[in-house]
Amino acid sequence: MSIVEQNVSPSLEEFYADIEAANLPPLWKYLGGMITRQPVYDAVPFLWRWSEVYPRILQAGQVPIERGGERRVLILNNPGLSHLYTTTHNLYAGVQMVKPGEVAPAHRHTQSAIRFVIKGNGGYTAVEGERCYMEEYDLLLTPRWQWHDHGNQTTEPVIWMDGLDINLIRSLNASFFEPYPEQVRPSDKPDNNSLKTYGGGALRPAWQKPYNDSGSPLLIYKWAKTYEALQQLAQVDASPFDDVALTYTNPLTGGPVLPTISAWVQMLRPGVHTQAHRHTTSAVYHVIEGAGSTIINGQRFDWQKGDFLALPPWCWHEHLNTSSSPALLFSITDTPVLEAFGLYREEAYTDNGGHQPIVD
Amino acid sequence: MSIVEQNVSPSLEEFYADIEAANLPPLWKYLGGMITRQPVYDAVPFLWRWSEVYPRILQAGQVPIERGGERRVLILNNPGLSHLYTTTHNLYAGVQMVKPGEVAPAHRHTQSAIRFVIKGNGGYTAVEGERCYMEEYDLLLTPRWQWHDHGNQTTEPVIWMDGLDINLIRSLNASFFEPYPEQVRPSDKPDNNSLKTYGGGALRPAWQKPYNDSGSPLLIYKWAKTYEALQQLAQVDASPFDDVALTYTNPLTGGPVLPTISAWVQMLRPGVHTQAHRHTTSAVYHVIEGAGSTIINGQRFDWQKGDFLALPPWCWHEHLNTSSSPALLFSITDTPVLEAFGLYREEAYTDNGGHQPIVD
Amino acid sequence: MSIVEQNVSPSLEEFYADIEAANLPPLWKYLGGMITRQPVYDAVPFLWRWSEVYPRILQAGQVPIERGGERRVLILNNPGLSHLYTTTHNLYAGVQMVKPGEVAPAHRHTQSAIRFVIKGNGGYTAVEGERCYMEEYDLLLTPRWQWHDHGNQTTEPVIWMDGLDINLIRSLNASFFEPYPEQVRPSDKPDNNSLKTYGGGALRPAWQKPYNDSGSPLLIYKWAKTYEALQQLAQVDASPFDDVALTYTNPLTGGPVLPTISAWVQMLRPGVHTQAHRHTTSAVYHVIEGAGSTIINGQRFDWQKGDFLALPPWCWHEHLNTSSSPALLFSITDTPVLEAFGLYREEAYTDNGGHQPIVD
Amino acid sequence: MSIVEQNVSPSLEEFYADIEAANLPPLWKYLGGMITRQPVYDAVPFLWRWSEVYPRILQAGQVPIERGGERRVLILNNPGLSHLYTTTHNLYAGVQMVKPGEVAPAHRHTQSAIRFVIKGNGGYTAVEGERCYMEEYDLLLTPRWQWHDHGNQTTEPVIWMDGLDINLIRSLNASFFEPYPEQVRPSDKPDNNSLKTYGGGALRPAWQKPYNDSGSPLLIYKWAKTYEALQQLAQVDASPFDDVALTYTNPLTGGPVLPTISAWVQMLRPGVHTQAHRHTTSAVYHVIEGAGSTIINGQRFDWQKGDFLALPPWCWHEHLNTSSSPALLFSITDTPVLEAFGLYREEAYTDNGGHQPIVD
Repeated sequence: MSIVEQNVSPSLEEFYADIEAANLPPLWKYLGGMITRQPVYDAVPFLWRWSEVYPRILQAGQVPIERGGERRVLILNNPGLSHLYTTTHNLYAGVQMVKPGEVAPAHRHTQSAIRFVIKGNGGYTAVEGERCYMEEYDLLLTPRWQWHDHGNQTTEPVIWMDGLDINLIRSLNASFFEPYPEQVRPSDKPDNNSLKTYGGGALRPAWQKPYNDSGSPLLIYKWAKTYEALQQLAQVDASPFDDVALTYTNPLTGGPVLPTISAWVQMLRPGVHTQAHRHTTSAVYHVIEGAGSTIINGQRFDWQKGDFLALPPWCWHEHLNTSSSPALLFSITDTPVLEAFGLYREEAYTDNGGHQPIVD
Repeated sequence: MSIVEQNVSPSLEEFYADIEAANLPPLWKYLGGMITRQPVYDAVPFLWRWSEVYPRILQAGQVPIERGGERRVLILNNPGLSHLYTTTHNLYAGVQMVKPGEVAPAHRHTQSAIRFVIKGNGGYTAVEGERCYMEEYDLLLTPRWQWHDHGNQTTEPVIWMDGLDINLIRSLNASFFEPYPEQVRPSDKPDNNSLKTYGGGALRPAWQKPYNDSGSPLLIYKWAKTYEALQQLAQVDASPFDDVALTYTNPLTGGPVLPTISAWVQMLRPGVHTQAHRHTTSAVYHVIEGAGSTIINGQRFDWQKGDFLALPPWCWHEHLNTSSSPALLFSITDTPVLEAFGLYREEAYTDNGGHQPIVD
Repeated sequence: MSIVEQNVSPSLEEFYADIEAANLPPLWKYLGGMITRQPVYDAVPFLWRWSEVYPRILQAGQVPIERGGERRVLILNNPGLSHLYTTTHNLYAGVQMVKPGEVAPAHRHTQSAIRFVIKGNGGYTAVEGERCYMEEYDLLLTPRWQWHDHGNQTTEPVIWMDGLDINLIRSLNASFFEPYPEQVRPSDKPDNNSLKTYGGGALRPAWQKPYNDSGSPLLIYKWAKTYEALQQLAQVDASPFDDVALTYTNPLTGGPVLPTISAWVQMLRPGVHTQAHRHTTSAVYHVIEGAGSTIINGQRFDWQKGDFLALPPWCWHEHLNTSSSPALLFSITDTPVLEAFGLYREEAYTDNGGHQPIVD
Repeated sequence: MSIVEQNVSPSLEEFYADIEAANLPPLWKYLGGMITRQPVYDAVPFLWRWSEVYPRILQAGQVPIERGGERRVLILNNPGLSHLYTTTHNLYAGVQMVKPGEVAPAHRHTQSAIRFVIKGNGGYTAVEGERCYMEEYDLLLTPRWQWHDHGNQTTEPVIWMDGLDINLIRSLNASFFEPYPEQVRPSDKPDNNSLKTYGGGALRPAWQKPYNDSGSPLLIYKWAKTYEALQQLAQVDASPFDDVALTYTNPLTGGPVLPTISAWVQMLRPGVHTQAHRHTTSAVYHVIEGAGSTIINGQRFDWQKGDFLALPPWCWHEHLNTSSSPALLFSITDTPVLEAFGLYREEAYTDNGGHQPIVD
């Protein structure tokens, strides 16, 4: 059959059947669902209460940590994306426990991770063998493709929040994983080496070149300094959308702590009611201290110490602290991912003094 | 019920049912599928023959270009990802036709696009109103969020390959789209303005700052210069994996033409059989001229002028040109996406002189 | 003597004598000369006529090129800075001749250099052994600390303009020089290798990383392409201060050709009279073709083909072409030096339609 | 006279006279002095003793601070460069005193400055009106072209070390200076605003973009944190050439505190004798605490608390602390200047266990 013959119009119905069968479907029929006017997301705003999480992670203590399963973690699984085991489309978060005497075995992967310590002092994460000792509310990093294991030589369980880019890496088809041949990667650096080397604020070893492509060389951010910085900033400045908010930085570059994840800490002062806005980045919040509310697309979530909250992208959101004590929130976002391609957008809610109507 | 009471172990089965119901599933059961040892991908290597595509895009001429459907394009739909209407997980490609006298209406979106002209001279793409006139084998760009429409004032249809980051933007939940209120955005710049401004090779207007965050300010790369550059490079250097290969660059930065898509042109010289390698980036090839073969994970694809070939990530691949004429390939890759997060990996196939065994 | 005793005021005159003797002079007496309200410069605007230069460089042919003296160059020595053998405070320029059969011996230095070919075709500069063959009006580079020698195997002398950062490097106390043990560094690359590799405009070998810290990897910019780019730009845009002006770029970065020197080519179209401005950068111009005038701080310099003109920093300047043919100027500037520290400033002359009064 | 006639060789002597007169001197006669084999410098290694400086800056108190003179500063004037009123070729340092009740008037200039507090608590530097209150051993910044004045509302004189790039800016012909119309620029920000905003170490306000082209947005680095960082680093690492050394950084970029000046603090532990090296950067040291020696090109300089030491570029140097207490040194260097152009070089002294012979 020549091209000229083929070009004789078949019935349109036959034509559509033919091109679908040839793996050549018509864009004009599907474009509206492929290139949407606004971001489309399946994740839902969701609150996990500490009162629900805490007993269950304790119960999980009956399950041993073993090679293959690797870690004792309850996934904060977004109901809208539950088959993907993720918290927002780009961010995965979970709650991990290491009991006294346990070691979670050494492995490495192309996923990057943060840990935020919820409960317990004295556990450690070893990164390339270097132990970083944890205290409550410290932030720890395990950058991409670095060996890491976790241990607890104290007499109490240690519990922390994990944050990783698991679903991003999956959607990029870029997951690599390797177990270390032993349970623990031997240590060749002193304990807390990175803290002692890079923990001095705006100072770094004079002989170091300012470069590290897998994230911050500072592997642990101590709570005492973080809290002090919040107190200082509160005296001079604040954001209308987030009140007193700091982002943890890579001291060698001023950039985010990890190439794919940004970490924030914020203080909502007593009586504060922020204005609503929305942005193309998603977030997972953890309540460090205090209580308050977040209104997401008109739905009110009342949270207190220990709770977790998922914020999908492009959702209007505002925060309230109606108590008489400050509320402290830790959060992770996927801002570096959107910014890498110029896709970060932010919009302020301007009606009604910046406050959304509550949907009952 | 107190925490202590809850902490009494239920049967393990009950425990698993309880945590799943609480949106707190156990990582240790799912980790193997979430953090895989090697990239997992659903895309398949696939060849679309020009002899199959060409008559169908001509037949599609019976369907008018209308607002809503926007464009007359047949999607190169990967059978492994067919419900997503994408060619690889990050890259979408299609074949578009504009008939004499038609105008594809102006719109803009957060997706970035390239066009590679397959057939016909004299069509144009207008970017922010500036018309870039096409000749065969030219590469054109429509960067993110810039108004663009396409027209054809000649007497023959114009056909080109589209390449966009549609599925990447979808998986990042970051799609914005806006139709222009008129069919055409009025022109306020001379025709071929960007070519005349930035087309001079390693020269730019002396008063311009070297910055443009949405991609190259040069919107059209003429084939005559591209072909000459291939001929020049062939005299002095070549890659063992790709023979004589050039990447189109943003002349203001030396970086990729778009933040999410890189474009290549390569010449496989007569008799060349490259060594196999694999990388974490995917690609869509189009055969400009000549004929040859690509072996992907042991499967041989014989291609000729006009064909399209999808290469999923992390697949071994090597190229052959057994003919006596050079074969010319154009391709797009998602390399900038992987490199943005340090996830680019490449591995050479070292067994058997670098050549895969053919799987029948 | 205790500090208290010393603190008894001596006579002020004695005090000043004492602190000067102690190498502790008083800032308050000298500050006005150290931190001036406007840039202070000793260079003068100056014109070297080709009719003066050309016979002298020919006469210089009687002096052989020898190790130690290294090169047959007449320095364009600024009368205001003549003891420094420099053309402006940061830029040195000279006129070099290599006669048929001669070789200027291989050496390297931390100074970076450009060459602009004034007369003769077929000479070459070898950089790290790779020969770049010159034609009239080509621009060549010899980046910092790369071995280079020059030769001429034709039957006519080859004459070019040299541009280096000699006085900048001297004022930074950072000069290193090394003669090659032989007259010529052996060649291990094909002739014109960099041109064939990087000369294709906005294309580069796909396997090359976009990085080179000593300047452009493209070592020769051919006049034919440069002239075409000027013609193209003239159709769409121009600067009010410089008319049709292009800067040569490093194709791997979009930045200047060398870390310390920027190179420009500009066309003053017939009848053009640009507006005056001034900037903190200095320049050395060479007239490629045509004739015209430049007014510097009210002083008019009429120039024609082959002439050289020094422009000190922060001098008002404007260009005229009163002829009926285009005038073409090549120039070097120290813009990258000023920009490295945020010291680039530019100011437009707004009185009198942008034109300076002429001082007789 | 035709060119051919001119080309008849005159006597060589006449030729040289002729080209010198024509401002076209022969490079081959002067090249050796222009492009030297190694850096040539006129600065000398030099020590200013605190016992000499302190009484004189007190005596200078008899001279009022007045507009025009602007500041009460004794210049640390290098004897080898004394006519230039500079300490090394790129770096100027001085000792400034503000007496109780005085204000040094507001001005701005393209020179960048650091201040290191030697004596007295409670003085302030106001930058763009924002007061930064000083305590002993704090480092303060006044970036390029920002209004600044200094005051002292305490009852004791405040004395600090100034460090500026005065001679670099002069050699670049890029000095601009402007007095503020009033004695003091009015304050529109809270005291210590930058400290409270950026002083939190590896944290910054979450809404701030990481960019500032004139230097660090953190204008004061408190000694308490600096000293703690030194103590921490001492536990895990040290340089063979500088022992325990930190560089102050711009927290938004990880880069130097100012575009032209880098600041260091280092601790030489008791008994340490570093290995000698040399580099193309120069430095000015100030002894914060303790006593020790530095050997420069074989000449031994014994220093103690309060002293200043100039190190010219490319001089071998090593440090000793033979006491039983740590010695603390502050220093400024011009490293960012050299690195901007790829001119930083460093060389270790390998003979004799890394130690220079002492020249008597």
